[in-house]
Amino acid sequence: MTDTPGNSRTPRLGEIGLDNFAPYLMNRIMGRYNADLRQQTDTMGLTTPKMRALAVLSVVDGLLIRELAVYAVVELSTLSRALDQLETKALLRRAPDSTDNRATRVYITPAGREAFEAHWPAMARAYEAMFENIPDSERHAFVSTLQKILGNIRIHDF
Amino acid sequence: MTDTPGNSRTPRLGEIGLDNFAPYLMNRIMGRYNADLRQQTDTMGLTTPKMRALAVLSVVDGLLIRELAVYAVVELSTLSRALDQLETKALLRRAPDSTDNRATRVYITPAGREAFEAHWPAMARAYEAMFENIPDSERHAFVSTLQKILGNIRIHDF
Repeated sequence: MTDTPGNSRTPRLGEIGLDNFAPYLMNRIMGRYNADLRQQTDTMGLTTPKMRALAVLSVVDGLLIRELAVYAVVELSTLSRALDQLETKALLRRAPDSTDNRATRVYITPAGREAFEAHWPAMARAYEAMFENIPDSERHAFVSTLQKILGNIRIHDF
Repeated sequence: MTDTPGNSRTPRLGEIGLDNFAPYLMNRIMGRYNADLRQQTDTMGLTTPKMRALAVLSVVDGLLIRELAVYAVVELSTLSRALDQLETKALLRRAPDSTDNRATRVYITPAGREAFEAHWPAMARAYEAMFENIPDSERHAFVSTLQKILGNIRIHDF
């Protein structure tokens, strides 16, 4: 393990233990969370990328497409197709940026906002289930660590 | 929002704020982490499901296929195809369970262990990058909360 950084040897996965390995735990948790929400988006005739785009736009409207791809954690090619279909359903609209004609911004419509509001109770329930019996102080400390981790590894400034 | 559980109204996403919403932060973090590791698995001619299966088996060998699907966070149909290909490459072998002939267990081979060991430095680097400048005590508290969250939402006993 001489090609890992730092001045001390990185322990091996079997030494850390799967149940103490944060990326494993986060993959397990988000796998479950995303699968739970997929059932709900399916019944609404939407997909995870589409609902994530609506969720993000409901709180930060008018993003550039490349910004929306980062926030929604959806690859640009997948997002473009999703945006086509959401625009056909009149859940959002695209418009050229006012200063850069080549850039496109995405805006949620009232119908799009309504679709997200219909989905939110399921998201809120899944979120509450995660933190059941976990004190607020612990949740706040947890979120603070998540913010630091995202700050450590993100390649965009947002 | 009267159809959410609990005796207090669940705040809306815009009130919580995207940057304070733990599932959003975890999706962003794991999106980045998984994308980083995908570059490495690509160069090794493997996929994320295949590498996850090898990673899990390297520390908990001889799992039933349905257990491996949960641990590796891979859907059963995707995992079955991945196992076919990993067995063809002699990176693992499948054998009937000793007590239940209809159940199949999966065992990693020395070549499979070698493939995972070749990938581990990249995983270790991505893991270290996450926790850069985060004290050990905070990492331990974070992992402890992750374990509680997984305990809250998992549908399997492991």
